[in-house]
Amino acid sequence: MNLRSAFDLPAPAIVLAEGAFGKTAGKTANGVVMHSELFDVGAVVDSERAGRSAADVLARPDVADVPVVESMSAALETVPEAEALVIGVAPAGGTLPEEWITDIRAAMRAGCDVVSGLHVFLSERDDWVTLADECGVRLFDVRKPPTDDDLRVADGRVDDVDADIVLTVGTDCAVGKRTTTFELYRAARRAGLNAGWVATGQTGIMVGAHRGVVVDRVPADFAAGVVEDLVHAVGANHDLVLVEGQGALTHRAYSGVTLSLLHGAWPDAVVLVDDRDRTSRTHFDRFPVRGVDVERELVERLCDTSVAALSTWGDPATERNRFGLPTANVYHEDGPETLLDAVRVAL
Amino acid sequence: MNLRSAFDLPAPAIVLAEGAFGKTAGKTANGVVMHSELFDVGAVVDSERAGRSAADVLARPDVADVPVVESMSAALETVPEAEALVIGVAPAGGTLPEEWITDIRAAMRAGCDVVSGLHVFLSERDDWVTLADECGVRLFDVRKPPTDDDLRVADGRVDDVDADIVLTVGTDCAVGKRTTTFELYRAARRAGLNAGWVATGQTGIMVGAHRGVVVDRVPADFAAGVVEDLVHAVGANHDLVLVEGQGALTHRAYSGVTLSLLHGAWPDAVVLVDDRDRTSRTHFDRFPVRGVDVERELVERLCDTSVAALSTWGDPATERNRFGLPTANVYHEDGPETLLDAVRVAL
Repeated sequence: MNLRSAFDLPAPAIVLAEGAFGKTAGKTANGVVMHSELFDVGAVVDSERAGRSAADVLARPDVADVPVVESMSAALETVPEAEALVIGVAPAGGTLPEEWITDIRAAMRAGCDVVSGLHVFLSERDDWVTLADECGVRLFDVRKPPTDDDLRVADGRVDDVDADIVLTVGTDCAVGKRTTTFELYRAARRAGLNAGWVATGQTGIMVGAHRGVVVDRVPADFAAGVVEDLVHAVGANHDLVLVEGQGALTHRAYSGVTLSLLHGAWPDAVVLVDDRDRTSRTHFDRFPVRGVDVERELVERLCDTSVAALSTWGDPATERNRFGLPTANVYHEDGPETLLDAVRVAL
Repeated sequence: MNLRSAFDLPAPAIVLAEGAFGKTAGKTANGVVMHSELFDVGAVVDSERAGRSAADVLARPDVADVPVVESMSAALETVPEAEALVIGVAPAGGTLPEEWITDIRAAMRAGCDVVSGLHVFLSERDDWVTLADECGVRLFDVRKPPTDDDLRVADGRVDDVDADIVLTVGTDCAVGKRTTTFELYRAARRAGLNAGWVATGQTGIMVGAHRGVVVDRVPADFAAGVVEDLVHAVGANHDLVLVEGQGALTHRAYSGVTLSLLHGAWPDAVVLVDDRDRTSRTHFDRFPVRGVDVERELVERLCDTSVAALSTWGDPATERNRFGLPTANVYHEDGPETLLDAVRVAL
């Protein structure tokens, strides 16, 4: 999916994050407000946090001063020029609540395209398609995988890409791979490099990756192939392609996705992402975290590449001594630059 | 999918293998004729080889004397008691030829359930469902993945399975993992063990695995979880669970599926399957085969298990000296027993 080419950037937007803004369940909404290059967010709908600002809720003073409002009607009053509604949270239990349906329809009637991260695909439902036609708006289901006709098994054509390819690999899920990828991308652009990036999850697609597919929804046979195609597409007009990783090679639930990404992207360098305070995996109490050294060794045995740097949330100096890798926290000053320099040495 | 429970075993059957019997493209048909515990095959339809016997076409004198016939009408005359039509070949180009449609419909009208390995799912097409209802027959689409409601992310519950779990891992695709798994299963039954097996591809399901899903069609996120569920189900009433592997950990196109199987099954022992004559991968000229030692080391680093034996098509004595593993060719006398003995030592 290439949302970038679907909008005049940045498009004025409203983010729906009811009940979840600033929380883990709202991580797509949080990411879009913090990082989107596609959307100029004018209001966030979350009745539980109405009256506060996004900077306050996210505890990120560098975030633009976006109001959190109690309802869609308040959002549409605040951002009358809105061109897009971003659904940045999934409903608990999976079923779309009646109030959300009403809110989404109101935004469509006000002329907003819908960019949805829902598990249910609006573009496959007749009632939503009919309304979109009536309103002259578009429905983007970001989680929807490409159709079988657009999928293929990997064949190694990524080896023909001239651009340098860098993949992030984590020691766990939800450890900062997308953030690290995005910050590397921004550092590369600041350094004057012709860099682009590939998203492999919904938030990355919504914040403006040059190409993206929610890879974990793709039939397992085609996962490496779709990554090859994404890297190929971004590599065609960039010199450096940064690829958002997923999972960990030692994560028993998601390792297949991780390895498909490693083999599909076949990167020239890897940046490992770690949270030193984790002992068991997020949402998986039975699975221990195996750590930086194990993951690094597996990456280098499974692919003709090397781990160039470590992105950490701990103290970079301590972690650097511990693992012997160039190390930075991307939220520290010059953190992204430190990682980028290490990557450029490795390429 | 559990085809075993759907039929009174073995069910008299016709196999459709038009243009492909004995060839790689007909490998599902070949497997069903050679190995099925579900179907008592009375005729194979392949006009190009009509008049010969299956034993002749497959060059396997131990295969029952099944006639290859030129048409479905000839097959229905040969096996008037047929209860199932097994579609054991996919049409070139993917589109079902008109003659096949006519043939399949004729078999349904004669009272045959359809067991299909086609990429297109007959059970999702109104015209096929209507005809099946009219004829009082059933449609089994073996490649169809479970619905999202039946899928989940792996959580390690396979660790609670009391049965011993053995997985085959290959150094390439199409190298004999299903055959090795099946021969190990038969050797275990001959030895009086309460063994069951899990298929992860369509042929395994059709030849009678106790449970099976075409894992490479499952969304990548759920691949390890579906394997956990399959092992759990077969482990509930068997002491030994043999799991058919897919791909290779070093196969850049399919490695994600392979690792999902390794982490989903979390086996107590692994049997490696190799063809020493391969240098590049089947259907993937750009990808070199990495060999037994590399694959063995990766298996043992990625999982808390050990490689117990090597299944080879070369000379077992030579391969045994080369790799230091108990080694056998499952088509040699006592070959399966040699592998089984090595597995039992490792458990």
